[in-house]
This record gives sequence, C-alpha cells and structure tokens, in this order.
Amino acid sequence: MKNFVIGIDLGGTKISTALSDLDGDVKSQITIPTDAHEGEIPVLNRIIETVEYVLKTGNLTTDDIRAIGIGSPGPLDAKKGIIITTPNLPFKNFNLVEPIREKFRLPVYLDNDANVAAIGEFMFGAAKGTENMVYFTVSTGVGGGAVLNGKVYRGNTSNALEIGHTTVVSEGPRCGCGNLGCLEAVASGTAIGKRGREAVESKVETSLKKYSTVTSAEVFKEAAAGDDVSKDIVNTALNYLGIGIANAISTFDPEVVIIGGGVSKAGQIVFDKVQEVVNKRCFKAMAEVCRIVPAGLGTDAGVIGAVALAIVESK
Amino acid sequence: MKNFVIGIDLGGTKISTALSDLDGDVKSQITIPTDAHEGEIPVLNRIIETVEYVLKTGNLTTDDIRAIGIGSPGPLDAKKGIIITTPNLPFKNFNLVEPIREKFRLPVYLDNDANVAAIGEFMFGAAKGTENMVYFTVSTGVGGGAVLNGKVYRGNTSNALEIGHTTVVSEGPRCGCGNLGCLEAVASGTAIGKRGREAVESKVETSLKKYSTVTSAEVFKEAAAGDDVSKDIVNTALNYLGIGIANAISTFDPEVVIIGGGVSKAGQIVFDKVQEVVNKRCFKAMAEVCRIVPAGLGTDAGVIGAVALAIVESK
Repeated sequence: MKNFVIGIDLGGTKISTALSDLDGDVKSQITIPTDAHEGEIPVLNRIIETVEYVLKTGNLTTDDIRAIGIGSPGPLDAKKGIIITTPNLPFKNFNLVEPIREKFRLPVYLDNDANVAAIGEFMFGAAKGTENMVYFTVSTGVGGGAVLNGKVYRGNTSNALEIGHTTVVSEGPRCGCGNLGCLEAVASGTAIGKRGREAVESKVETSLKKYSTVTSAEVFKEAAAGDDVSKDIVNTALNYLGIGIANAISTFDPEVVIIGGGVSKAGQIVFDKVQEVVNKRCFKAMAEVCRIVPAGLGTDAGVIGAVALAIVESK
Repeated sequence: MKNFVIGIDLGGTKISTALSDLDGDVKSQITIPTDAHEGEIPVLNRIIETVEYVLKTGNLTTDDIRAIGIGSPGPLDAKKGIIITTPNLPFKNFNLVEPIREKFRLPVYLDNDANVAAIGEFMFGAAKGTENMVYFTVSTGVGGGAVLNGKVYRGNTSNALEIGHTTVVSEGPRCGCGNLGCLEAVASGTAIGKRGREAVESKVETSLKKYSTVTSAEVFKEAAAGDDVSKDIVNTALNYLGIGIANAISTFDPEVVIIGGGVSKAGQIVFDKVQEVVNKRCFKAMAEVCRIVPAGLGTDAGVIGAVALAIVESK
C-alpha cells in the first residue's frame, strides 16, 4: 500500500525534505543547505540525496510512496514541471520534475511556493475543512494562492493569484514589476520600509531617525511605540492591504482568507485594520462569514505544503 | 433517453423559456410578460405554464427532459434555490426551485443572471473550449461570473464575482452599495451618464448640453463626434474598466475575458482601451495569451445560458 508521500521545500538557502503519511504526520525529515552557487546539476543531486535519506531513515522504499511534491520559488510552469527562472536558485528553464521522476519512478509534482503554502493551509492548517480559500503572503513582496471548489487554482499559464500585482492605486507608486500602484508597491514589507526611509530623509520629526537602517520591522516597532509618522505609514499600508483583501473577498467569496509572510507577524494590528477595511468595503453577506486569519502552519509550512501538494495531486 | 433540457430566463419584464437539446439547439421557445405586479404565486404559475408550453410544442414529455435551469436577477441562494430579493420581481426569500421540481419531478437549478451568462458563453459562446474564463457585464451596474477549472465558480455564499464592488479608486465616488470607489461607481453605464450630467450642469463647454436627458448613450455618441468633455469621461471610465479587468486577469489568469452588457455595445473603443490598460498593467505572460472579447451570444443569451446551466449541473 502506498500510504506515504515525500514533500520537498526548495529554497534559495536550504532544501527541506520530509516523508509523511497521508495525514501530514512526518516520519522522517532532513534540512540541508541549497548551495545554489554550485549550479543546476549539483543542486538537483542534493535534492535526490534528501529523498534517499528520508526513505532510508523512515525505513521505507519507493514502493510505499504515492508521490513527491516540490515547492519552489517561481515563476515556473507547474504543468510541465519547469522552473523558468528565480533569483536565488541556479535553475533556468530547467525541468526539475523529469529527472526526479525517472530516478524514483514516482509521480512528481512541482508548484510555486505561494500555491504550496495555500494547499498546506487547506489540508493541514487554518483552512482545513473549507472548500474555497485564498492565501496571501505579505513580506518582501505580496503573493497569493487559492483553493477553489476544493481544488488548487492555477489558471491558464500557472500565474493565477498574482494578487500583489493587482492595482489598488491607479496612479500610485511604481512597483518593481514596472506598473503603477500595485498592491505590492503600497502594502509589502518592502513598501513599508521604503516609506520609512523616505520619512528619515525628509524634514518630518520621527523616531525612525535613530536607526542607521530602516526596514518594515523598525517602522512597525516605532508605530507600536507611538511615533505618529510610523503609525501613519503602517496605517496607510494596512489600509491598502485591506483593500486588496476586500477585493479578493468580493471576487472569490471565500470561507477564509489566510495572511502569511513576514508582515503578518506584526500581529493583531494587521488583522484588526484589514478586518475594518473589509467590513467597510465588502457586502455584509460575505464579510460576516469570511474568516481572516493568520497562517496556521509554522516554520515547516513549506515542507508540509509540499507534502500536501503530493497528496492532493496524486488523489 | 433524456437528451433535452429546459432553460428559463426570468426577468423583471419578461419570462423566456426554451426547450433545447444538449448542443444548445432550441426545439421550442416562448416569451411572455412577467407581470411581476401580480405577485409571487401568479408569476410562479406563469413560469410553470411556459414549461408546459415548450414541452407541448416540442412534442416531448418530462421523460425526455434531463433538467430545468433558471437564470434570475439576484441576490439569490443558488444552493438552496431561493431568490432572496430583487427589485423587479415579486419574490422575497422565495424557494423557486422546490415547487417547479415537485410539479415536473425533474432536477431544477437556479443561478443569478451573471453566472448564467458566463455558463452560456462557456458552453455555447465566446468562451467555448476554454477551462478558465471570466465574464464581465457592464451596463447599469457591473457584474461578473466565472468558470474555473471547467466548473462554474460560486464561492461560499453564492456571491463570488461581485467584481463591480471591488475597489479601484480607494477614495473615489460613492457607489450605490455605500462604499467608495467601486468599479461600478466609476465604470458602469450609470457612472458614465452621471459624469455626463455633471458636465452639463457645470460651466464646461460640451455638446452634451443639447440633450434634455443625458445617459451613457449620449456621452458615447458625443465622444465619437469629437466632444472633448465626452471623450474624457469615456476615457476615464474605460481606464477604470481596464483596471478592473487587468486585476481579474492577474487574479484568475484566464484564457478569455468576455465583456457583455450595454456598455460593451459601444464597440471597438471599449475593447481597444481595455486592452491598452491590460497590456500596461498585467504580466506579459498572462496579457499576451488572454483574449478580451465581446459576448458571443446575442439577445437569447439569457435563455441559452439557462439551458447551459441545466446541462452542466445535470452532468
């Protein structure tokens, strides 16, 4: 009986691989450095070694394994199993699925880390038991994933839920993607840090000026300590995040919206402000029943998500 | 063999009912006034009469019918078959599905008219052969529907795709729903007409002043004739519509976006402007492959959509 799966969380600094049963109970796990600078084939071989390791330490063989799931930064082509390009990994238009499938003679599934996080939350986290959920990750950038009608939704070119690049301010600040007023340009951790540094360089009085380096962490800290400029920056960014989430609720009418990523760690202030905006902007019928909650999976979210990907795709 | 379905397009002024095969070929059809003022039971009985009529004139019995689909203005509860309330129909929290199902002993499906139009376009119109499509209707209001992973997407409370009430201008004009800067408040036919009347009442020079009544039709007409004020109003509204559609593309990554409703009838100017905004605001990978096209079904879109609803739901 094939009652186990393997999940691989492929990141720029480390590879984390777990062997799990179909309830998400991890039997064996390993985390090693990616050593991305070594190039495509060495990193591929390191991934394969982690799979062999968890099989061995879990006292299982490939006969016990239903599938392997891999979460990776994108952009990637989930259908073809190709990593197109990504800043911190060596792979360029590299088919990561094929060599691993051939090596272990198992079904292998690849997806971007936002989708994998969404699937993980859907199966084992804060969206367990729902049919329709949207996942926002708010940190350096703003990304997303969704499970709709009980299935992960990827869209036509695997690029669905590029929710960080929806427009919330039509002539707003320039986003890294080139456009104006993207959600990411006004609500990401990067945007909050940038607004903080602009304040430091300006004539306004702000306690941010005591720091040599200002990121979103300092802005949240000084806002909590009562600095008006920091409070204003945080409030503005969270208002836009609220608009982005309100738009997602009006669009998807989900049971739950999950907020993960660094900015969500700033705590209750994030959820209070987002809820306030949603209550103001969404139809009552949807706003009242949709829960807006932090991610339920902790530091192992990536690898548990990859386990979940393997389970849902091999069903 | 049950190789036929019946579709009912329930509107405030007329009821249109068709008996169709599974390819959307209509065998018999009738359109009668709704006479909504007569109240719930008389209108229900008129609906039942249209079903009996199309069966009789189609020389078929309920044994030949697979299911009945009904499209109605919302808000409604598609799962329960209840029309909650709607301005031009007598039904208030009225279960429309149950009495029709009991009368004919057939499966009966109810959905709101935007979803029904989306399903119609998906099965028989401009989105035929796709897996992921989004439908926008832009007229008095702005509504939407979507078919995702090949299935109609309704969300948790049947309110998904309330795309007219996504925010595109955070502190924009007040929408009928009470919020600020909804897509509907800046891009609907109603919004265009309102901006036209504001211009007439102001000091600006505009050829709109020759009309005793200004609606979106006059604004589009004078824009085409070269009136700068009208051109500006149209351009601003279509820019916002473009943002709304760009946001839907970034969110859904669909194969096709269909624009229906009165405003889409203004022609190529609508599609050119929307495409321009989408090219500017969406990732190339999505913008290049997503078609943005007018609705493919004509005046019978409502009843053909109801036929399509009956087919997809009874599969």
